[in-house]
Amino acid sequence: MITRIETGPRMSQAVLHGETVYVAGQVARDASADVAGQTRQVLEAIDRLLLRAGTDKTRILSATVYLADIATFAEMNAVWEAWVAKGQAPARATVEARLALPAYKVEIVIIAALP
Amino acid sequence: MITRIETGPRMSQAVLHGETVYVAGQVARDASADVAGQTRQVLEAIDRLLLRAGTDKTRILSATVYLADIATFAEMNAVWEAWVAKGQAPARATVEARLALPAYKVEIVIIAALP
Amino acid sequence: MITRIETGPRMSQAVLHGETVYVAGQVARDASADVAGQTRQVLEAIDRLLLRAGTDKTRILSATVYLADIATFAEMNAVWEAWVAKGQAPARATVEARLALPAYKVEIVIIAALP
Repeated sequence: MITRIETGPRMSQAVLHGETVYVAGQVARDASADVAGQTRQVLEAIDRLLLRAGTDKTRILSATVYLADIATFAEMNAVWEAWVAKGQAPARATVEARLALPAYKVEIVIIAALP
Repeated sequence: MITRIETGPRMSQAVLHGETVYVAGQVARDASADVAGQTRQVLEAIDRLLLRAGTDKTRILSATVYLADIATFAEMNAVWEAWVAKGQAPARATVEARLALPAYKVEIVIIAALP
Repeated sequence: MITRIETGPRMSQAVLHGETVYVAGQVARDASADVAGQTRQVLEAIDRLLLRAGTDKTRILSATVYLADIATFAEMNAVWEAWVAKGQAPARATVEARLALPAYKVEIVIIAALP
């Protein structure tokens, strides 16, 4: 009834339950990128995890976007809006928060529906 | 199976799935108001979206409250507690975070049940 | 269909709906403790609420960890990893945020499955 993807001692990268999947906060693999580049990496990581969960970005229910610097809101949004499935945007909240490493500029948490 | 309310290129204001609705982070329409006034506006926006989703504040499961200044905790709470349905308060977390515009003092994210 | 645990005028400590329980953000009872001590108290509070909800830490779906100082990430994680059920770690996000009282060093929000 609960299925976990890429489970470690600290967290799982995604957890499936019923018709819902909870994706862990995703950050950039290469934290030297700027906020646009990091957002692209984060969204690629989300695509990959949604695929492993058997769903995709057309079924995202909710997104929480944490920006290390809220002044980068527009740069993040440009990448976000190019990525979102047309007509299928999730509910979203975006706030400023320092992230686990000082180099991280953006972290995104997703809840999605399973087909 | 997924129904979206007020969908744009960036986000939907609410997304319904199964018996749950995810409401996007709501902020004040008039950001010149103080934290009490902004909280009132945010809760009105939430009432409106819950109504459109076919539910209401008696069925809120979870709330996340972001305050631009945690020192306004008491002012926000006074408005919040006057609004919450008696005996039907949701699980809640409140933390400080800078919001999308410097004038925003409070943003609230809701997950609610559908009847 | 909705069951609330320890409901007050502001919030409920946990809200059950369908096969999911939403636990309110938990903070330390004794805020004079360091971040490791506060994390231990928070996890005990979560264990207690999950038990009252009829579930336990083997069924946590999602965790959001707020640290007042992200520099305490490692201390929090040491306590967290000792507590997490092996092979059953939830999806998780950790960000920095000031909390309701200046003395609070960590707050954790949990969504869990009911058996």
